[in-house]
Amino acid sequence: MPEPLSFYFDFSSPYSWIAAERINGLAARHAREVRWRAIMLGPLLKESGNRPLLDQPLKGDYTRLDFARSLRLYGLKGGLPSKFPVATVGAARIFHWLRKTAGRDVGQAYALAVFRAYFSDGRDISDRAVAADIAGEEGQDREAALVASNDPVWKAKLVAEGNAAREAGVFGAPYILADGEPFWGSDRLDMLDDWLSRGGW
Amino acid sequence: MPEPLSFYFDFSSPYSWIAAERINGLAARHAREVRWRAIMLGPLLKESGNRPLLDQPLKGDYTRLDFARSLRLYGLKGGLPSKFPVATVGAARIFHWLRKTAGRDVGQAYALAVFRAYFSDGRDISDRAVAADIAGEEGQDREAALVASNDPVWKAKLVAEGNAAREAGVFGAPYILADGEPFWGSDRLDMLDDWLSRGGW
Repeated sequence: MPEPLSFYFDFSSPYSWIAAERINGLAARHAREVRWRAIMLGPLLKESGNRPLLDQPLKGDYTRLDFARSLRLYGLKGGLPSKFPVATVGAARIFHWLRKTAGRDVGQAYALAVFRAYFSDGRDISDRAVAADIAGEEGQDREAALVASNDPVWKAKLVAEGNAAREAGVFGAPYILADGEPFWGSDRLDMLDDWLSRGGW
Repeated sequence: MPEPLSFYFDFSSPYSWIAAERINGLAARHAREVRWRAIMLGPLLKESGNRPLLDQPLKGDYTRLDFARSLRLYGLKGGLPSKFPVATVGAARIFHWLRKTAGRDVGQAYALAVFRAYFSDGRDISDRAVAADIAGEEGQDREAALVASNDPVWKAKLVAEGNAAREAGVFGAPYILADGEPFWGSDRLDMLDDWLSRGGW
């Protein structure tokens, strides 16, 4: 049984959303599972000397166009929210809480719901109350989610996931590791698909 | 008759090579022509705050893998040369000279030959003598090419092309403008294809 793919994402990363919508289907075609890993991209960007997309001269305007075209290409409805980027620690902690206590599928469904709430519906997922609302809408315990969003246990878990990502060499999001091979960006999913088909190098 | 696509490239840009191998075929499927525009990427990178790929922590190692996989995906043989990146003013001036005096097709054939000499055969295209040799191998006048590679007329032309690119918003390479719509990176050719199929937004 091969290792699951590791899928690192940040809820405030637009291309992470695109990857989130596609990764499980892609992996399933190769009989692979996916471990979803919510991280905070900000600290990793600082470390690698990268900067948030919209802070870069010229690249910001380009990114708005590119994201809109990318969504159209994959049949997704949405865009860059007016409040962008946002801090997503609360949602990420709820994700880790759900993943641990309710299981992989519940965690992944919650993650997709958060992405869609932000990029499709423009809801402010940086608000812990909103992040908890989304858990409630997914059939989970909204009050327990709100507690988890500020609980030292899940705070520590999120920090640990970020440290593990750094040690694994992650410097952007989405970032996928397949048997140690790195793929950065939703635009590399086709290459990941090709790579899995070939069975490596 | 629609405007030709503008294809901005730098001979030292690995992903420009991939785009160069694919752009004319793609455009032809949409009955579009392509205007190839050799530019110097360095000054534009400075302006946009971008940095050369391999100067970025972590991203450099990643780029080597990604480029190798990209070449494999498109059936191209090559890799990052040991001397990378290099200054390519000589080859770019010869390109503009050929394009103007011998025509579009000769210019494009020379450009492809320069890319292949560098990324497939590891030849030092920063050496004006080598850039002129390649023109000779393409059936052009090698000595005239060597003169053009240092001629004030073609120096000025290359600077003018760089200024025009900056004014058009170009901040990286490869960069393609299709009816004013920007596409950055060889990984956006499929999106350009989709965009041309739809006839715009």
